[in-house]
Parts: sequence; structure tokens; C-alpha cells
Amino acid sequence: MSTQPTPTDDQEQVRQDFYRELETQNMGPLWVLFRNTMTAEPRQREVPHLWSWETVRPRLLRAGELVTTEEAERRVLMFLNPGDERKIGATATLYAAMQLILPGESARAHRHTPTALRFIVEGSGAFTCVDGEKVRMEPGDLVLTPPMVWHDHGSESEQPVIWLDGLDIPLMVALNCMFFEGYEGDAQPVTLPPAHSEKLFGRALMPRGSEHLASSRFSPLWNYRGTESREALKSLSESEGPDPFDGFLVRYTNPANGGEVLNSIGCRIQLLPKGLHTKAHRHTTSAVYHVAEGSGFSIIDGRRFNWTRGDTFAVPIWSMHEHAAGTGDAVLFSLTDDPLIQALGHQRTEVLTDNGGFQKEDFKLDPTS
Amino acid sequence: MSTQPTPTDDQEQVRQDFYRELETQNMGPLWVLFRNTMTAEPRQREVPHLWSWETVRPRLLRAGELVTTEEAERRVLMFLNPGDERKIGATATLYAAMQLILPGESARAHRHTPTALRFIVEGSGAFTCVDGEKVRMEPGDLVLTPPMVWHDHGSESEQPVIWLDGLDIPLMVALNCMFFEGYEGDAQPVTLPPAHSEKLFGRALMPRGSEHLASSRFSPLWNYRGTESREALKSLSESEGPDPFDGFLVRYTNPANGGEVLNSIGCRIQLLPKGLHTKAHRHTTSAVYHVAEGSGFSIIDGRRFNWTRGDTFAVPIWSMHEHAAGTGDAVLFSLTDDPLIQALGHQRTEVLTDNGGFQKEDFKLDPTS
Amino acid sequence: MSTQPTPTDDQEQVRQDFYRELETQNMGPLWVLFRNTMTAEPRQREVPHLWSWETVRPRLLRAGELVTTEEAERRVLMFLNPGDERKIGATATLYAAMQLILPGESARAHRHTPTALRFIVEGSGAFTCVDGEKVRMEPGDLVLTPPMVWHDHGSESEQPVIWLDGLDIPLMVALNCMFFEGYEGDAQPVTLPPAHSEKLFGRALMPRGSEHLASSRFSPLWNYRGTESREALKSLSESEGPDPFDGFLVRYTNPANGGEVLNSIGCRIQLLPKGLHTKAHRHTTSAVYHVAEGSGFSIIDGRRFNWTRGDTFAVPIWSMHEHAAGTGDAVLFSLTDDPLIQALGHQRTEVLTDNGGFQKEDFKLDPTS
Amino acid sequence: MSTQPTPTDDQEQVRQDFYRELETQNMGPLWVLFRNTMTAEPRQREVPHLWSWETVRPRLLRAGELVTTEEAERRVLMFLNPGDERKIGATATLYAAMQLILPGESARAHRHTPTALRFIVEGSGAFTCVDGEKVRMEPGDLVLTPPMVWHDHGSESEQPVIWLDGLDIPLMVALNCMFFEGYEGDAQPVTLPPAHSEKLFGRALMPRGSEHLASSRFSPLWNYRGTESREALKSLSESEGPDPFDGFLVRYTNPANGGEVLNSIGCRIQLLPKGLHTKAHRHTTSAVYHVAEGSGFSIIDGRRFNWTRGDTFAVPIWSMHEHAAGTGDAVLFSLTDDPLIQALGHQRTEVLTDNGGFQKEDFKLDPTS
Repeated sequence: MSTQPTPTDDQEQVRQDFYRELETQNMGPLWVLFRNTMTAEPRQREVPHLWSWETVRPRLLRAGELVTTEEAERRVLMFLNPGDERKIGATATLYAAMQLILPGESARAHRHTPTALRFIVEGSGAFTCVDGEKVRMEPGDLVLTPPMVWHDHGSESEQPVIWLDGLDIPLMVALNCMFFEGYEGDAQPVTLPPAHSEKLFGRALMPRGSEHLASSRFSPLWNYRGTESREALKSLSESEGPDPFDGFLVRYTNPANGGEVLNSIGCRIQLLPKGLHTKAHRHTTSAVYHVAEGSGFSIIDGRRFNWTRGDTFAVPIWSMHEHAAGTGDAVLFSLTDDPLIQALGHQRTEVLTDNGGFQKEDFKLDPTS
Repeated sequence: MSTQPTPTDDQEQVRQDFYRELETQNMGPLWVLFRNTMTAEPRQREVPHLWSWETVRPRLLRAGELVTTEEAERRVLMFLNPGDERKIGATATLYAAMQLILPGESARAHRHTPTALRFIVEGSGAFTCVDGEKVRMEPGDLVLTPPMVWHDHGSESEQPVIWLDGLDIPLMVALNCMFFEGYEGDAQPVTLPPAHSEKLFGRALMPRGSEHLASSRFSPLWNYRGTESREALKSLSESEGPDPFDGFLVRYTNPANGGEVLNSIGCRIQLLPKGLHTKAHRHTTSAVYHVAEGSGFSIIDGRRFNWTRGDTFAVPIWSMHEHAAGTGDAVLFSLTDDPLIQALGHQRTEVLTDNGGFQKEDFKLDPTS
Repeated sequence: MSTQPTPTDDQEQVRQDFYRELETQNMGPLWVLFRNTMTAEPRQREVPHLWSWETVRPRLLRAGELVTTEEAERRVLMFLNPGDERKIGATATLYAAMQLILPGESARAHRHTPTALRFIVEGSGAFTCVDGEKVRMEPGDLVLTPPMVWHDHGSESEQPVIWLDGLDIPLMVALNCMFFEGYEGDAQPVTLPPAHSEKLFGRALMPRGSEHLASSRFSPLWNYRGTESREALKSLSESEGPDPFDGFLVRYTNPANGGEVLNSIGCRIQLLPKGLHTKAHRHTTSAVYHVAEGSGFSIIDGRRFNWTRGDTFAVPIWSMHEHAAGTGDAVLFSLTDDPLIQALGHQRTEVLTDNGGFQKEDFKLDPTS
Repeated sequence: MSTQPTPTDDQEQVRQDFYRELETQNMGPLWVLFRNTMTAEPRQREVPHLWSWETVRPRLLRAGELVTTEEAERRVLMFLNPGDERKIGATATLYAAMQLILPGESARAHRHTPTALRFIVEGSGAFTCVDGEKVRMEPGDLVLTPPMVWHDHGSESEQPVIWLDGLDIPLMVALNCMFFEGYEGDAQPVTLPPAHSEKLFGRALMPRGSEHLASSRFSPLWNYRGTESREALKSLSESEGPDPFDGFLVRYTNPANGGEVLNSIGCRIQLLPKGLHTKAHRHTTSAVYHVAEGSGFSIIDGRRFNWTRGDTFAVPIWSMHEHAAGTGDAVLFSLTDDPLIQALGHQRTEVLTDNGGFQKEDFKLDPTS
């Protein structure tokens, strides 16, 4: 099975010369690099992290004062994972950020390959126009702006409106598959009745001739109402017991094929009833969680992160995590790269078996609480 | 390419003897039977037919007086196609019937292989219990009771409640695949909150662990509300022009996979705006139409059928048909064996090109108007 | 829950009058017909039956002497199930027959909605031309002629060539979905190289632009070679133990999507090693078996059917069955309506648990052995 | 739509202070970074590049002299794209490399999340053992070692054996989804007959109980024989005209579902008949080509790359490319990230319309020919 014994110093010099020569030919020796690349498990690169609402909100309002006319339509604070050298993502694949729109503002229509969603955090009266439909947005709503679908937005509110942006920019940068296009003219025309996609696709009623949507990589339903997802969680919690790892969780679904709402990003919302403490597990998907209701804490890779409404936190790939609601019910919205990992067939889960399935917190290691 | 010339009388006798001998061996000569079986096109067997509400309703109420205690839970008038020798179907594959339930009545829980649906025609306050969920029914609602799913029903109304039953009994008889099972005990227990399937599946929100539903042959949503389908038709009619053959048509969809709501029966509802007269075509699916709103007429294989609210009519396979609304908007609910024909890959459509796409009526041939 | 007590004679007369009146309106009372139609289990209609090669072959050769020139291209002896009133099928859905082609004969090109396959029983040198490809046929080969695909055939042999025909004519008659079309001209032109579909689709190599085949309802591979299926059975039998119900069984597959080779008919071939006796079960699919190699017997609904090479036998829906090889290995080819039953979601299986899983034979009931 | 005019220097200082403060909170201003990230089109990062056989082969043999016993099982020269800062890939998603195995050598069994394939370049008599099946390898064969499937290899040849390795390591590094596992013991036991997967899956014959493979992300067929793919190309070239962009191209297919052979990597082989010069296009997939037969050249982003048997070249995402065969037929094997891009729904193609569809070469820009 072998060819040569361990090299002497002279031999090692010959090898180093050979490696350098290879480099000039745009080649490299796998046997040298193998060990660093082909690790037994994912090495920790992106880390668990929480961006608190009390930190984010004032800075977002401050940004409202500082940005120029032109910049206003990107008045967005990106959440950057401390471990991401590229300074673009909240996890290896997911971008998350908080966007502020002030009364009377609007953004020009555009479209792009990155997949995008909005989860409304604060304020009524803003809208996103998606593919000819003006979609009104209320807190708790999930609004989709899928790849290469025209969208613009504006506010008819008298208050600031804030939402969480979720995109797959880190993935698209890795693939170098970025296309961005501005609409000719500021806003696209509104061609469809209000709530059109909700009245059809959101009620499992497909218009004649929409069979092609079954093979689309994104949902034709633009708004998943917060009031409806909350009702669904309530009904679910009255129909069965909680899942040990997720409490009561529902998956936002593409009604045209039952799949995920977006090509690379799945959306979930889960109810953790008062006092529930889920068991710990880890998996090959990464996620960004946003606290939509209540308060509680999560333990991620042994660190405790206390959270309350408005907070956002990242759980990287293969990070052990568990959640606990506080003194009232808590609701977590999350985005995950599960659709991508599933498409590749790499889903894998490991359940913590020690200590009854709960991590021991190491408070010294926890920088945020 | 040949072996023998045309036979003489003697030879013919030999052949007949041979055929008889074959019969004793449970064999038969294809060359004799070929021409009658392998026809160029479907021969007319089931025929277009209309059952008018003014004929059906009084007889249904009369049945309410005549049936016994035990019979009451099958107080159903079957619509039998004049061309169906088996006396079971409204078309070759579809059974249709009208069911009456009187105040305080109920039916014992059962399940069966035939696929079933209900379209509520008259009366509020009845319910169907499906798989542990008590589903209230209002006029215009479509309620599913899929194959081998437990269901029972009852009425808490003070009025008679009437609905259209649609099943695939003729198909199941042809396949000889009939299984029927009564529930132990009269009614199944109600284990789920009211409108549970609507709040989850009907809002494109799938509970964790329901991935297996993607490969189910029927929808997990039990009630498609009439108010919602009517809203969808309105929004559709405001967003685009009518389809030349179907006006404004939506397909009830299984939100778990985007497919048909039932394995062998598809459900549709369509708005024909005041004055719209669709063009004629025919296809390899058969359908039963029920007039949910308004009045108008259809021309089927050259015969005119006037219809108004409550009427039901059958369009057999390969029958040329066109529809026209009267002096107001009309809404037609329909069931079709499209899912079966699609599964077999036999979908085929022929558009009438003569006479501007409209059939000439031959009033002499029309027995019903 | 009730309305009326059991009727008196007078009341019964009123009811009978009502029923007759309903009949004039093309309606019928479900409560009367219910019990006969909605049976707890499929009633026995088609029955188990075996057509022996020693009975079939001489009659087929005799037919070769009797049929006329024109009839010769349908020189086919149909296998008619004793329980099928329509005199068309071997089971409720499947047609099976034996076809003879004599040296120099040919059949004109045609196509039709019924799905068809050929399993070659005897003789080399005949061919079927399918969609422009001339497909040579050898004993043991499975050749497909799917719905609405042009096909013709001929013989360049010096011997009679005989094959088993399998179609879904009974199903198509039930659906009344029969279309038949003759080719203009006798034979279609051969436009493709020999064994073209085998060299591409039969080797899991799909030409650019053939993505649409993934949603086709039939395989693009026209010939599944007997030599190859036999090799596969051998390799399978060397890699694992036999299945308790099927021995070593492989499914002929559509390489464009992994599904069944035909829309309504699945094809299987199975090796029963010398001495293997499988356990009994029954299911909601029906099948026709053809003995390709060896001899043995099957017990179907308690009746024993001895079989040897060339025999064909039918197993109706829900018939309990088990197979046993004789003193050498046996190979059974079979066609089944499994794809149809699967598409409808009605698959159901019941395993015999009594008597160690084997049926007791009742020789008195067995008319064939 | 605006809030603030263009900032003064003082204001700019305030902004810079704000940005720095954001950084301490692991946040960043999107409006600053937007323009660099959200580009109109992919920027050139990885570049077209060719690794010539005459450069690679001697260095590979030299590596055979230099590596140690332990290193020998990774005696692989990686092809590193000059534009890839991570020094891991031939394109943004694909790793390609050339591996040498000397007589009597073997590699220990292992498995990992990266997807892998081998295209045999030189030498007979080596084998890869995949999941219990010993797969012999001949020049022109494509051998799969999919994610988390055990594999080891060895050589029973008396000559060096060389193959091209293709993997998705760059993608897996981006996702940080690396798992690697060594087998306990050196080699896995051979439990299956020779060519088992070829005799079953490679002939469109699926063993009973293999239905689950339909949802697998990789093919169950381990070896796609070079002799068979060459025959397929020949038959294809005799049945139709060449595609303007690809000549005669076949896609290696997963026979269990008709999809790609691997989750993230598609494999293709194409025949460019003598003298054929394809038209130029570009798309959102990247590929690595290997010259399996003949010689010719490609023009990629305006640079000409001459190639001959054994050469390997990379075509990055969105690079305009065209191919031309030389004085004989040429055959190109290629791997592409098409399955990944399709799964995400980002496929996009642009055809060159200027100059008759052919690029003008700029020889000055071409560093390799």
C-alpha cells in the first residue's frame, strides 16, 4: 500500500521545491492540504450570536438621520457573524438585517438572484409591491420577494416601519451567481387586485393555467399573515403535544407544490408555551431566529443567550441548541438553509443524550447575557 | 403479409366450430372482436343529461318522508346516466347524487375506498366529522371525505340540509376494488379544534412532521369555503380576461403537494360573467357540473340544456360542450375525472373550429329544454 | 337519527311506486342499492385461471391455418377470464393474449390509447418497429408499444414466432377512452439506428433535450432484453436472500424517471430458485403471470395450479396466492395493474398468518390440476 | 423618497464614526456595501484555465516518487483556478484533480460529505470498491463515489493507473458542511457480485424494495462504462443532427429517478465530429472539461485554448464559450454544477448573437496556447 518511507530533511527540501513548482502551474498537492480541509466534522467558523433589539433599534433610528436621499432605500443594518471573514452573513449561507422605512419613503423597483424575505417587526402601513401586486404589511407578516421577481416598497404610515430582511447573499457570493437589475421607471405598475395572491394561492385555489407553478422554486403567495400563522400555532397547540425539540412548529409552505416557500431559504414559526424547555440537538442546517413574541433563552453550543421580543440570533451549522420560553408563551420566527441542505441530501441530525438531553451552561463562556 | 383468402361457407363453418371450441377453453379470437372494441373514437355510451333542481328537490323531500330509520343515513337520490347499463354513474367514472339530512339526524361513522366529496347546496348547521375534526358546512362549501378516511355527519340545523355527493363508485366497481368499513361505535370522537385543517393546511402552513402528506393522494384540508372560492373568482375576474373555454376557473388544490384534492376526482369552480358564451371543445375527461349561482345554458353534443341554480348536469367523455351565462353572473361547480386521465397520460382535447367555435343547436334532439 | 319505522305493506307499495317514478327521472334510491354495491371486500368476480401452453399452442397454430389475409395481423387468441361478463379481460383491468406471426407476415402500422407490451415466448427473427426504431425480438425480451406510439411488426424468421400480448383494454373499455388510428401507408419508415433506445436510455444515458421524458407516462426504452433480465436475476440471487413472497424479483423501470414502464401496467420478472415455496398474501392489484422458465405451481384462493414453461395464469384482485418452484429454478414474468392502483392510492396488502403462512389446498376445488 | 442631502465632511466623519461603532456590535451598513456586492452580473473571479496533459502527467509520475507511504493514498494533484483565493477549486463550486495509483497500491476505505466521481484516463486493472461492490475501472469509465458512501480503491495493474477526480469541495467548504469518516479496518468487505449495480440499475431493472432510491440524491449505478457511452454517442450522431452549442451530448442519468447522477455535480459526455465548431453561449453553471478523445480547441471569454487528449480545462460561471473539433472526432467528458443551479432555480443562458454566434479570438489575451 506504500511507496516511500518518511522523508529526510533533504527529501523534504525536494518536496517543497516540487510544491512550489506545482504552484506555478496552478496545481497543488492534495496530500498536504487534505487534513486541513477534510475534517471529521464542520469546524467552528461562524459562531452563535445574538443581536438584541435594544442594541439594534436605536442604531437603526440613528441611521434614519444619517443616510442620504439615495442611500435611504438601503437603510439596512446588516447582522454580521463574528466568524464570517467575508463580513456578509449571519451564518455561512444566510444574510439577516434590519430595515427601516420612514413615513413617505419608497424604494425603486428592482430584482436580483438572491432570494429575499421580510418579517415585519414594527409599524403598520408600509407595503411591498411584488410582481404587480401591492402587498400591505403588518407586524408578524412574512412577505416574499423571490429571485428575479420585481419588487419595490413604500410607506403610507405615519410611523417608522421596521422589518427583518432575510436573504441568501452569502450563498450567492460563494457561487458567484449575482445578477441585479433596476426597473425602468421608479415603481412597477399595480396590475392586480389587493391581496390577489392570498385570495387564490393562499386559499389553495389555483387559477386555470397555473400548473407551471408546480415546478417553480418559490411560492406564488406573497404574504403569509401574522394573524393567520398565530392562529395556526394556537390550533396546533390544542391538537397535540409539543415536539421535544421544536415545541409547536409550522412550516410556511408553497401551496403550488407543498415545498418550501423559497429556493434556498425555508421559513418556520414556532410556539414555545410558557415554561417549555426543549431538548438539545444539532443539525447540518443553519438558521436565524427572530423573537416575534414573549421572552426566554436559548443555549447554543453551551452558551446561554437570553432573548426578548425583537431580538435576532444565529445558530450556525452543527451547533447544539435548545430553547426555553420564559414566564409567558414565546413565538420564534426563523429562516433556515434547510431547502439547500435537503436538495443536496446532506441533512443530518444529532440529539444530545447526556444530562437528560439538556446542555450544561457555561456562563463564563457566554459573552452576551 | 397474408395466409388465406376469404373463406367459403364450409370454411366459415369450420371457423365457427373453432370459435366455439376456443370458448370452452376460455379463449377468444381477437380478429373477430377487434373491430367492435378498438374503435377510432369513443362510442357514445353515457350521454349528456341534466337533473333539474325543480325535479330533484321535491323528490328528495318526499324521500325524507318515506325512508326508515336505518335507511335515513343513506337518504340519497342517485343521478343515473341514461346510457349507463350498470345504473350506478352519472358518467363512466363519476357517481353524483343529492343527499338530504333532516334536523337532528346523523349518520354512523364509516370509511371506504371510493373517493367522496360534498358540495353544499342548501341549509346551514350540518357538519361532517372527518378524521377527528368536526367540519361545519355552509352552502357553497366543498367538503372532502377521501378514501379510507373515517367520516360521519349530523345536523344541528332546524332546516333540511341538502348537498351534492360526488364519488368515483363507477370506477371502483370497474376495478372491483371496493372496501367498506363501519366504525366501532356510532360516531368517532372529536379530537381536533374547530377548523383545524383550515387554519393550518388551508393557510399554507404545514405542521412539523407532515412531510409525508406530500405523497398522499388526497388533500389534508377538509373544507374549501364557499365564501373564499367566491372571493377568489372575483379577484381572478378582476385580474385578467376570461379563458375562451372556461371563463374564470379555479382548481381546488391539495396544499401539501399542489395536486388535485382527490385521487381520482378533481374539483373546479368557475365564474361565467353575465353574457359570456364560451367556445366549444371536447376532451377525454368526463365531468358533472352543478349550478351554484345564476342561470344560463350549455350546449353539449348539439343539444341545449338550460340550467339554473341547483341543477346538475353530466358531460360524458369526448362530448363537445360550451357554456353561456344568462342575464347575471353564473357560477358552476364541477367534478371531473381529470386526475385519473392525467395519471394515465390520456389527456386529449379537440377544439371546435367550425362556425366560429360554437355548436349549432339542434332543438329537436334536445329532450330536456 | 331516524325518521320512520319499518314500513307496512301499504307503505312498501308507496315506496315501490316512488322508486319507479324516480327511474323515469333517471334517478335511483341509494338506500336500496347501497348494500349490494358498498361491500366490505371485493366480491369474487374475475377468478383465478390458468391457460396451459399445451392447450394454447396447437390452437394458435390452428388459427394460423384458418384466418384470412386481412385477419392475419390480428391472429391473436385472447385469454378470457371465466368471471368477466364483458369477455375481454384476463383480470378486471388486464387483457392478455397469445399472438402468432408466420414467416414473411407483417402487420400494418397503427397506434391506440390502450397500453401494450409483448413478452416473446418462441422464435427468433421477428421485429416490432416502434416510433421509427426497428426492434428485434428474441425469446425472453419485453417489448413496449405504449399508448399512441406508432408500431408495426413483421417476421424475417423461417419459423413461427409467438409472443404474449398484454394490454389494458378492460380498463380502457370501462373508461370509454378508446382511440385507434391506422398509419397512412403500411409501415412507418425506419429513421433510427438499430438498438438506438437500448444504447441510450437502456444504458442510463439521456440525450440532451430529453428532459421532457421525465414526465412521460411510459418508458423511452423499447426492448428489455431477456438475456439481461436473466443476468440481473442471477446477480440479485447471489447478493441477498429471497423475499418471502416474491423470491428474487426485479421491476422493469422507466429510466427517464425511475417509474413503471407503462402508465397502467407494471412489468416484473422473478426467479424462484429450485424448491422455494413463497408465503401467501393478497393485495389490491391484479396480475397475469407467464412462465418463462422451469415449472412449479401456485396456490390461488385455495386452488392449486401446476404450471410449466409457456403457461399463463391470472391472479385477480384480492386473491390469496403463493408460488412454488419445482425441481429446477423457475422464472415468472408478470404484468400487473399496480401503477394504476398506486396512482389511485389504493394499494393494500394482507399476509396470510394461519398455517405458517401457507394456504391449505383443497384439491376438489381445483379444476386444472 | 429621501431624508438627507449629500453629507458634508463633518457629516461624513459622523457617519464613519457610526460605521465603526456598528462594527463593534457586529453590524454593518448595507448602503455602503451594497454596490460592491449586488453587481449587475457575476464579476470575473475564477477564470478560464487549461491544465495540459503534457504538464500534468510527468508531475504526477514525479509525485509517485516523492510521496510517503501514508501520503500515497492521496497522491493527487489538484487543479487550482488562478482566481480562487481559497486555493481549493477549479471553479467556484467544483474541485478537479488528477490521481495516480501505482501497481499494488491501495487506499483505506472512507466516506465523506463531498460528492465525488472518477473519470478513468489511463491504465487498466484498478478498482474502486463502492458500498460492498468491487468496481473495475477501464479508461473512459465514469465511476461514482457519492456522499457518505463507503469507498476504497486499489490496483491489480502492472502499470500506473490515472484518473480525473471531480468533487464539490469548494461548495462544501462554503457551506462548512464537511464530514469525513474512516472505515474501521482498511478495506470494506466485498459483499456483492461483480458488476452488480450495472446488471440491475444499469439495465433499468430495479430490485424489489428499492423504491426508496427514487428520492435518493445520487445514482445507485457505480460505473458508467466508457465503451457504452461511446456507443451511445455514435448512435445519437447517426440519429439526428448536432446541437449548435453542444454537438452530440448525453447526460449520465440516475436510473432510479431520471435525475442527475450526483446531488451537486452533473456529468456529460459529448461528441464533436471532425470539423464541427459550436456556437458560443454562456450560462450560470460552471464546468470542468476533460478531453477523452481527439483534439481541438475552445474559445472561452475570447481566449483560445487548444486541447488534446488528457487535457482538462475550466469554464467558470457566465463565461462565454464555444468548442471546435480538430481533424478527427473529439469527445469531451465534463462535470458541471448544473444540478445545484437547477435546484436553486438560477439557470440562465445567453447566446452570442454577434459575428454569426462565434467569438473573435484575442490571441494576446490567451496565456496558454
